Amino acid sequence: MATNAPRVAGRHFLQIPGPSPVPERILSAIARQTIDHRGPDFGKLGLRVLDGMRTIFKTKGHVVIYPASGTGAWEAALANTLSPGDKVLMVETGHFATLWKTMAAKLGVEATFIPSDWRAGADVAAIEAALREDKAHAFKAVCVVHNETSTGCTSRIDEVRKAIDAAGHPALLMVDTISSLASVDYRHDEWGVDVTVAGSQKGLMLPPGLSFNAVSEKALAASKTSRLPKSFWGWEEMIAAGKSGYFPYTPATNLLYGLDEAIKMLHEEGLDSVFARHLRHGEATRRAVAAWGLENLCTNPKHFSPVLTAVVMPEGHDADKLRSVILDAFDMSLGTGLSKVAKKVFRIGHLGDINDLTLIGTLAGVEMGLGLAGVPHKAGGVAAAMAYLADTKREGSAKAA
Amino acid sequence: MATNAPRVAGRHFLQIPGPSPVPERILSAIARQTIDHRGPDFGKLGLRVLDGMRTIFKTKGHVVIYPASGTGAWEAALANTLSPGDKVLMVETGHFATLWKTMAAKLGVEATFIPSDWRAGADVAAIEAALREDKAHAFKAVCVVHNETSTGCTSRIDEVRKAIDAAGHPALLMVDTISSLASVDYRHDEWGVDVTVAGSQKGLMLPPGLSFNAVSEKALAASKTSRLPKSFWGWEEMIAAGKSGYFPYTPATNLLYGLDEAIKMLHEEGLDSVFARHLRHGEATRRAVAAWGLENLCTNPKHFSPVLTAVVMPEGHDADKLRSVILDAFDMSLGTGLSKVAKKVFRIGHLGDINDLTLIGTLAGVEMGLGLAGVPHKAGGVAAAMAYLADTKREGSAKAA
Amino acid sequence: MATNAPRVAGRHFLQIPGPSPVPERILSAIARQTIDHRGPDFGKLGLRVLDGMRTIFKTKGHVVIYPASGTGAWEAALANTLSPGDKVLMVETGHFATLWKTMAAKLGVEATFIPSDWRAGADVAAIEAALREDKAHAFKAVCVVHNETSTGCTSRIDEVRKAIDAAGHPALLMVDTISSLASVDYRHDEWGVDVTVAGSQKGLMLPPGLSFNAVSEKALAASKTSRLPKSFWGWEEMIAAGKSGYFPYTPATNLLYGLDEAIKMLHEEGLDSVFARHLRHGEATRRAVAAWGLENLCTNPKHFSPVLTAVVMPEGHDADKLRSVILDAFDMSLGTGLSKVAKKVFRIGHLGDINDLTLIGTLAGVEMGLGLAGVPHKAGGVAAAMAYLADTKREGSAKAA
Amino acid sequence: MATNAPRVAGRHFLQIPGPSPVPERILSAIARQTIDHRGPDFGKLGLRVLDGMRTIFKTKGHVVIYPASGTGAWEAALANTLSPGDKVLMVETGHFATLWKTMAAKLGVEATFIPSDWRAGADVAAIEAALREDKAHAFKAVCVVHNETSTGCTSRIDEVRKAIDAAGHPALLMVDTISSLASVDYRHDEWGVDVTVAGSQKGLMLPPGLSFNAVSEKALAASKTSRLPKSFWGWEEMIAAGKSGYFPYTPATNLLYGLDEAIKMLHEEGLDSVFARHLRHGEATRRAVAAWGLENLCTNPKHFSPVLTAVVMPEGHDADKLRSVILDAFDMSLGTGLSKVAKKVFRIGHLGDINDLTLIGTLAGVEMGLGLAGVPHKAGGVAAAMAYLADTKREGSAKAA
Repeated sequence: MATNAPRVAGRHFLQIPGPSPVPERILSAIARQTIDHRGPDFGKLGLRVLDGMRTIFKTKGHVVIYPASGTGAWEAALANTLSPGDKVLMVETGHFATLWKTMAAKLGVEATFIPSDWRAGADVAAIEAALREDKAHAFKAVCVVHNETSTGCTSRIDEVRKAIDAAGHPALLMVDTISSLASVDYRHDEWGVDVTVAGSQKGLMLPPGLSFNAVSEKALAASKTSRLPKSFWGWEEMIAAGKSGYFPYTPATNLLYGLDEAIKMLHEEGLDSVFARHLRHGEATRRAVAAWGLENLCTNPKHFSPVLTAVVMPEGHDADKLRSVILDAFDMSLGTGLSKVAKKVFRIGHLGDINDLTLIGTLAGVEMGLGLAGVPHKAGGVAAAMAYLADTKREGSAKAA
Repeated sequence: MATNAPRVAGRHFLQIPGPSPVPERILSAIARQTIDHRGPDFGKLGLRVLDGMRTIFKTKGHVVIYPASGTGAWEAALANTLSPGDKVLMVETGHFATLWKTMAAKLGVEATFIPSDWRAGADVAAIEAALREDKAHAFKAVCVVHNETSTGCTSRIDEVRKAIDAAGHPALLMVDTISSLASVDYRHDEWGVDVTVAGSQKGLMLPPGLSFNAVSEKALAASKTSRLPKSFWGWEEMIAAGKSGYFPYTPATNLLYGLDEAIKMLHEEGLDSVFARHLRHGEATRRAVAAWGLENLCTNPKHFSPVLTAVVMPEGHDADKLRSVILDAFDMSLGTGLSKVAKKVFRIGHLGDINDLTLIGTLAGVEMGLGLAGVPHKAGGVAAAMAYLADTKREGSAKAA
Repeated sequence: MATNAPRVAGRHFLQIPGPSPVPERILSAIARQTIDHRGPDFGKLGLRVLDGMRTIFKTKGHVVIYPASGTGAWEAALANTLSPGDKVLMVETGHFATLWKTMAAKLGVEATFIPSDWRAGADVAAIEAALREDKAHAFKAVCVVHNETSTGCTSRIDEVRKAIDAAGHPALLMVDTISSLASVDYRHDEWGVDVTVAGSQKGLMLPPGLSFNAVSEKALAASKTSRLPKSFWGWEEMIAAGKSGYFPYTPATNLLYGLDEAIKMLHEEGLDSVFARHLRHGEATRRAVAAWGLENLCTNPKHFSPVLTAVVMPEGHDADKLRSVILDAFDMSLGTGLSKVAKKVFRIGHLGDINDLTLIGTLAGVEMGLGLAGVPHKAGGVAAAMAYLADTKREGSAKAA
Repeated sequence: MATNAPRVAGRHFLQIPGPSPVPERILSAIARQTIDHRGPDFGKLGLRVLDGMRTIFKTKGHVVIYPASGTGAWEAALANTLSPGDKVLMVETGHFATLWKTMAAKLGVEATFIPSDWRAGADVAAIEAALREDKAHAFKAVCVVHNETSTGCTSRIDEVRKAIDAAGHPALLMVDTISSLASVDYRHDEWGVDVTVAGSQKGLMLPPGLSFNAVSEKALAASKTSRLPKSFWGWEEMIAAGKSGYFPYTPATNLLYGLDEAIKMLHEEGLDSVFARHLRHGEATRRAVAAWGLENLCTNPKHFSPVLTAVVMPEGHDADKLRSVILDAFDMSLGTGLSKVAKKVFRIGHLGDINDLTLIGTLAGVEMGLGLAGVPHKAGGVAAAMAYLADTKREGSAKAA
């Protein structure tokens, strides 16, 4: 970025909850020369990434890859399965759930929104109650955000599934995993999800520009009768072309190169190791927050996010001012508080291609920044995180030995 | 691409009519680390590319950049301006015009389709006649593809504008410049276009994954009353956020880096030089085709495309077999014949970051390939192109001196 | 390169006889983050490239890789084996042989120089005669340039070996393969070469910055008593450290990444295919030159170079003016005539990562440039090359079928 | 690097005292296509980097750039100025000074070595005494390492200059700035240095593969009569060709692209800011070391290095075991102890493209590693460094306001 300001040395710390830092291998992959998306080499690439994404979603079903960022995959989920005037049950986990609801309204879908204080994941009992009450089965779908990027609360999709089953309700289950896929354990088939929505720029470690639907047979059947208009987002031609690794219109070839590499990297590390790493970094971060004497926005330990931690500012202190001090002093980007919690929280991303030392650097930037910005806090957050990381590393080695 | 086939030496010739070869400077730009799309540096980038695209569209109006490939920008043009059941006038210039019409139908818009034999650009008289006949002004829009990528025919948008004016018809003018923008002279404001649709992977020399709408005030006004559902494609939030260089949802940051560089490169070369280069390469290619004794699909010299040339195969010879021979023997990708002209034509792309020697290599691949595939033709196509290129280079130098 | 001149579109044609065009895979490899050259990952890389280079030199002996360009490896060959005042037999194949001789003199080594008209490879009979005459075995080494980059003449190293043996002379055989290795068949062990000198920026397709010595046991023994001062170039520590994949001082890590990739690519194509490709491109180029009615500097068909062709200008025409016209008009770099043949020849490089269509583009640039520069010639060079390339491609396919 | 070990997530911490982490802008620059090193564009690049390096060395004199790593530039300094049997005065600041002395011996130069305990920079009084004693002016040169990479002690070159002047001795002053240039304040002309030796992979932030001599008129005059053999390292042709931006033999073009970018970046940050940043990071590191209760190898505060800190292990603990634990647990490379201090010290690099958060990550890796490896130490090193960094950041802001 050409500016007249003096150059800032060193590597920027991109610690927002996505886009996450893109590994060199992926940046290098997307910089390869574009190829003919109708030629024979492309078909091999297409099959490889579609099959690869199945292993990430843990599904044997259909996967659709859009040359579009994640918001588009939300629209695809709705437009392919619903008809004008359809009712859906949504859960107000936070800002992104609210945006999805707003989108539904724009598309002519009527959402019942289970309210929340943004401090926990989806209230499974409330979902079950709402479904039991819906004797007429008016709800065509239950839509839940797996990991609320605005709050740092992760919903229990396995429990949502059980609630739907307990209520004996035929609604589709649609789950937004935009900020959780490939960071938090997720099982499309095992949990009976009908449409999973995902994006490229979080756990998949890619730049933004790709998004995904994983689609069950039940969802596919629903798409046959759905009457919302759809063309770009239409599954039918996507799934048909995908069988041979191609796309009905021009795909984002270079990002697919990156996806191919990302899938390889996730398997080289091992998905379980990836999940464990995120869990451990989430815990380390929360220990730092606690040591600072600050509050985690998420209050339900069952819902603590392995991906990000939203930290509540002490009364009378502006989170965006803190973020700006930290950006200027330490060249680190943190996530802003969104809508309801604007200026009240800041968010620390600890997802994607991150390791222990980067996390400590991140937490140090927050701790020093709190001091520079005059935000009341106790020292020792970094020390607490280090203690936890070292201890768990020691145990990990002991176990491995 | 890892395969077990032996490595093919040298640089692949990507001579399809898009994606065009991506210059090293752009590949290098898109490989830069992703930044926070809500941070201060991003806003500067956003303003720069939005302003830059105005200079490419030649508009002082609104520009919207989608993190999606070109097909999406077609949908955006329709969804933002029209309502269910609306009528539009479209022109069957070829395969892509037909796809756009099919999309309109999927979205619930009724298209009257002016038929064509795919061998010329839009019939301006027929457009005028259709509009004059439409006393009730039922047509809400006239939709034309500027450069038909399937046929190599370029329509005269200035004349279309005059026809609409002559008919005194208030329809919006919507133009697809996906394969022409930044290769063929185009003037959104001067020609009174209401919505221009464009993509990244042709004249802009980027990989696919970005698309564009340039929007007139009249089109923006139409969007206020349009009732087609829209969310991802909605102009309103895009234009509002764009004023400060941001986007309402996650943009394709790394492709925007590339766009920033592409705009810079186009201005370094000069748009008029870029257009002249494409015109000259179109003529050189047609001279080669004529020398081979083969036929150009486009029969109207006023409509010859500076971007690609579709070559008609002699009766009884399969264009795709020829393409396959050429790919195997010379590692060059040519465009396939689409739908109506499948197997009957192949398409030579001569657009984007191409120079004289690459064009000669391309034509030599075709000429040698015709021989290897046993397609009846005369030699001398390359020689004819060389003669033309050398002569015009000499004149260019003479003029400059 | 920032300049104020307008941007030149398309890909530069780098058709000098080295550096040759660097493939994307190699550029991407050298752009990886530098690692600790004393860490465990480095040792694996080091062993891989040292072993890999053995397969390229076709030796089971010692290989030394210098973080220095090719001229350094010349100095290493001399400094490691010789003592002040030693006599060597060198052959004036052209400019580079002359430079090597000049270097020998600077280092205090006395070279007897077998003269030549620069139009053929080494005169093997003259070498044998000189050695037979040297009853006292004063010559400590015979130094020959395998492929003279200044003339396009390739010497027959197998015959030089036989000449030395026939003369029963104990001199070391030292061969410069800077512009031939990995382009022309070469066999360090089978041909009994004692020191092979090589560089990275020709057949190995890397940027300049690495150079090599392959070292026989006999040469290594000579190094034990050699008295020319040496430190940076000293084999002893290099060979010792190399056994575990390390270097006695900081290696050019990023170029080694590229070398690792280059060796992989050469084996993916197959060394024999690489050699055949260069032979075929050499013949195609010579047919073009003949068709133009111009003269090849190399007059002995046994010595025609598969790597480059030096073309003699018609009397009264300046080769550098032609090169300048071609660079301006067609953005192609050709090799200049050096010293004795300055302005009298230009050199066409046809080595490294080159394919048929790039070669035709190259020859077209020359043919059109001859016209623009007013150099008397006949047309038809490109046509002649195309005929040969197509015919041999047809035969190749026939053979494969 | 392909291995079968599971992928390690996140960015490797390369905290050895060089190579330092290479910024993305430089990696991207060296990945550009190689150009003709005899063409017009190259000349502009050559002039730019030669002029640029003058601003880094702070000289109006001659600069020579070798396509070779730093050890070569040592040899160049000696070979260009000295004759066989010449005497020089060298100072045993540590391992690298010793290697330079060994090299002198190999080249036939006789070095008097002022001994040291490796815990301080050059003893200026001892230099002055030795020179005063040398009434015959037998010493042709005084050779000093500015920043001893093996010990973390920086010598005062300004004081060495004064000592030579005070002794009235005509010896050349030759200074190795391989690990200090562009990290520590340095003034070739002002301090009357005759030959400055430098490399690319430390403060210049490039991969290894380039090295430098800055040459005074007095040194150039000495080179006219010097009798050590020299060819590759010879200044004469280098300086002559450099006047127009070219090189007498093939330069390392792609690394020169990187150098061009590096010089631009250093000036964008400002050399004084670069030096201040290194000083601040050195102090922060030493505070961490002190807090751990460990000892800095360098005992003279006047000589503390802004580039690296060598930390002495408690008796009975092996520094290399610690380094190995840290590499395994936290993917960070630290410098090993060399020769005399092997296994007794480890070295923390804090040079090049480093910022506060990366430094904290680094120190956290050491602190946690000390724990994992069972090395006796106190906690609080990271906390001490954070306190210092935050305080100085606050003061910096206060001053700027």
